[in-house]
Amino acid sequence: MSQSSPDPVVYLDHAATTPMVPAAVEALTAHLLDVGNPSSLHASGRRARRIVEESRETIAQAVNCRPGEVVFTAGGTEADNLAIKGIYWSRQGTDARRTRVLTTSVEHHAVLDPVFWLGEGEGAQVELLPVDRDGRLDLDALRASVERDPASVALISVMWANNEVGTLQPVDDVVAIAAAHGIPVHTDGVQAIGTVPVDFAASGVDALALTGHKVGGPYGVGALVVRRELAVTALVHGGGQERDIRSGTVDTPAIAGLAAAVELAVKHQPEHAVRMRALRARLVEGVLAAVPGAMLNGPALDDPTARLPGNAHLSFPGCEGDSLLMLLDARGIECSTGSACSAGVPQPSHVLLAMGREPDEARSSLRFSLGHTSTEADVDALVAAIGPCVERARAAKA
Amino acid sequence: MSQSSPDPVVYLDHAATTPMVPAAVEALTAHLLDVGNPSSLHASGRRARRIVEESRETIAQAVNCRPGEVVFTAGGTEADNLAIKGIYWSRQGTDARRTRVLTTSVEHHAVLDPVFWLGEGEGAQVELLPVDRDGRLDLDALRASVERDPASVALISVMWANNEVGTLQPVDDVVAIAAAHGIPVHTDGVQAIGTVPVDFAASGVDALALTGHKVGGPYGVGALVVRRELAVTALVHGGGQERDIRSGTVDTPAIAGLAAAVELAVKHQPEHAVRMRALRARLVEGVLAAVPGAMLNGPALDDPTARLPGNAHLSFPGCEGDSLLMLLDARGIECSTGSACSAGVPQPSHVLLAMGREPDEARSSLRFSLGHTSTEADVDALVAAIGPCVERARAAKA
Repeated sequence: MSQSSPDPVVYLDHAATTPMVPAAVEALTAHLLDVGNPSSLHASGRRARRIVEESRETIAQAVNCRPGEVVFTAGGTEADNLAIKGIYWSRQGTDARRTRVLTTSVEHHAVLDPVFWLGEGEGAQVELLPVDRDGRLDLDALRASVERDPASVALISVMWANNEVGTLQPVDDVVAIAAAHGIPVHTDGVQAIGTVPVDFAASGVDALALTGHKVGGPYGVGALVVRRELAVTALVHGGGQERDIRSGTVDTPAIAGLAAAVELAVKHQPEHAVRMRALRARLVEGVLAAVPGAMLNGPALDDPTARLPGNAHLSFPGCEGDSLLMLLDARGIECSTGSACSAGVPQPSHVLLAMGREPDEARSSLRFSLGHTSTEADVDALVAAIGPCVERARAAKA
Repeated sequence: MSQSSPDPVVYLDHAATTPMVPAAVEALTAHLLDVGNPSSLHASGRRARRIVEESRETIAQAVNCRPGEVVFTAGGTEADNLAIKGIYWSRQGTDARRTRVLTTSVEHHAVLDPVFWLGEGEGAQVELLPVDRDGRLDLDALRASVERDPASVALISVMWANNEVGTLQPVDDVVAIAAAHGIPVHTDGVQAIGTVPVDFAASGVDALALTGHKVGGPYGVGALVVRRELAVTALVHGGGQERDIRSGTVDTPAIAGLAAAVELAVKHQPEHAVRMRALRARLVEGVLAAVPGAMLNGPALDDPTARLPGNAHLSFPGCEGDSLLMLLDARGIECSTGSACSAGVPQPSHVLLAMGREPDEARSSLRFSLGHTSTEADVDALVAAIGPCVERARAAKA
């Protein structure tokens, strides 16, 4: 396999995308030259179908669901859209009163934007529930909103873990509140798989989105894990693949790569988390020591049930995050001002604003996210560079 | 790169999916280990973005559109859904009278099913226009339908080439009829790219769907080529990628593979078509000679503007197509009873029914589709096997 050789960089942006692991590369490339559409009846088609179904079983085992509950998609954004629009259309179609969609103010755009779209064009009433200073959902607000009129709630969507500040949401409590009224719960699990324990069946959620390129698998493939009992209207119609919920030729090589990556990530999650937490502690400690006035955003680091293990999010008062990002980038250190998916638009993070930060404070922040290739040397390079970069960024702003 | 080694087969199902060409494998694998989300601001992100934009330019050059008119999707089905729903929502949102969706009765399910869905849930009035015995759109019927009330037409969708019987549709005439009233035209070009000349700008269509795995590129990636002037409502909302029409992390390796495949397929289209037509003539002649009573479906073979060069579709009266398919499969010869995407469901093809065939006749048909790996030996193997297989299939049915 030929590969381009990028310059060596200190890559601290694993929450945006993390490199493929060798097992996933192997699984994908093993099937690149296979011929046969998994929907075809002949031997080549059946062989492809077998790979897809084995991959489905592997993923089901890793996240503890039934194989038939894994619906392959092109990634996390499509999985979130399918869950939100598909459950809304289905529930609203069954009972026209069900127009309310409840979610948090700190969701990824892949959740917020379909929710807003339902509100603008499809008659949904959108409620963004507040979070505390650490980005954690206000359960009392959720309970009050549900109990005000449970019969009008089409669905609740609460992310498992926040992509910017790493906050783990109280999904169990959300499910308990929803279950009392038979309201389905979707969760965006894109950042959670392989980084914290995720057990679909035990969680009680009805739908969970995951994606390949955040767990060491390929881009362009993901899944919506969704209970068979829950009706979901398709987002993409056609050949009737994937239980008729998601049509389109099934992408055998990418699915094989996804399965290999999910299996490995989930298997190694416990020790991976320990290693990430140690690296993260070194990073945060080092940066806070190097930069007077820098502040950690999001939950405390010592409680593993509060925060993703590889996430560090810091504010550097007096800096523009974008300038600081580019100064670090010039030294070969790569990080993010928030969600990569809305990068390019320099506006304060909606997550930090929802956490009660001022726009200026929000704009002064950077996310450093660690992953399977991260090393102490990466962290030390950041710690060495951050002081001078902040000084220059402050001078540029002053 | 490790590869599984499937048994040697005579693969005559290239319209369902065709093997990747080496250049596409090379382009994809070259970027599998790259790190960097194309939406990220840092150097790795910008490097990925550059690959995506170069790929966009390559495809634009190949199909003659502007780079900004290429919107990457997860494949042809998603591209068709995006065009049909996105244009419908946008046009209907601008003028509530625009509720009619006109299409042909021989479209792929990736077009028919979103159209039907708009009819069932989104207030669209669906009109399926008739075709002649060769599967060619009745232009008088289209003209009459449009002129009955042009202001109420949201869009027209007519495939470039039929996936089952290979009929090329009169897209130029469709555009002429539509343009007189400012009605946008979408075309499913999935089977056409690389097999017949396709010039987006010259065609006058507003949107065209293409997909990787039908042109020697990867699964899981395709594009909607769509005029910048035409507003399209997003199907998948989120990070705002792809002009905010199609959100989701951009799949750099697959896009690089797609671009390499499209470039090559379009470049070699003229000589490829000549080779396919010669092989197809040998196939049809051989099969008709071997099987008394067998009949060719679809347009005559001698007019290159009437039919896809690699498509042969035949009826074998007295046979069940499914049985015949399995008998051929047992001898290592792979073909299709129609669109692979709805395979598994043994019902007569809607295409053949629309062409005026009886259900029994339709069910007795097989599609043989040739592609870049096809050889005379493949054709000869089919010609040698088809006679005995038809005999057995007829005996099984009798």
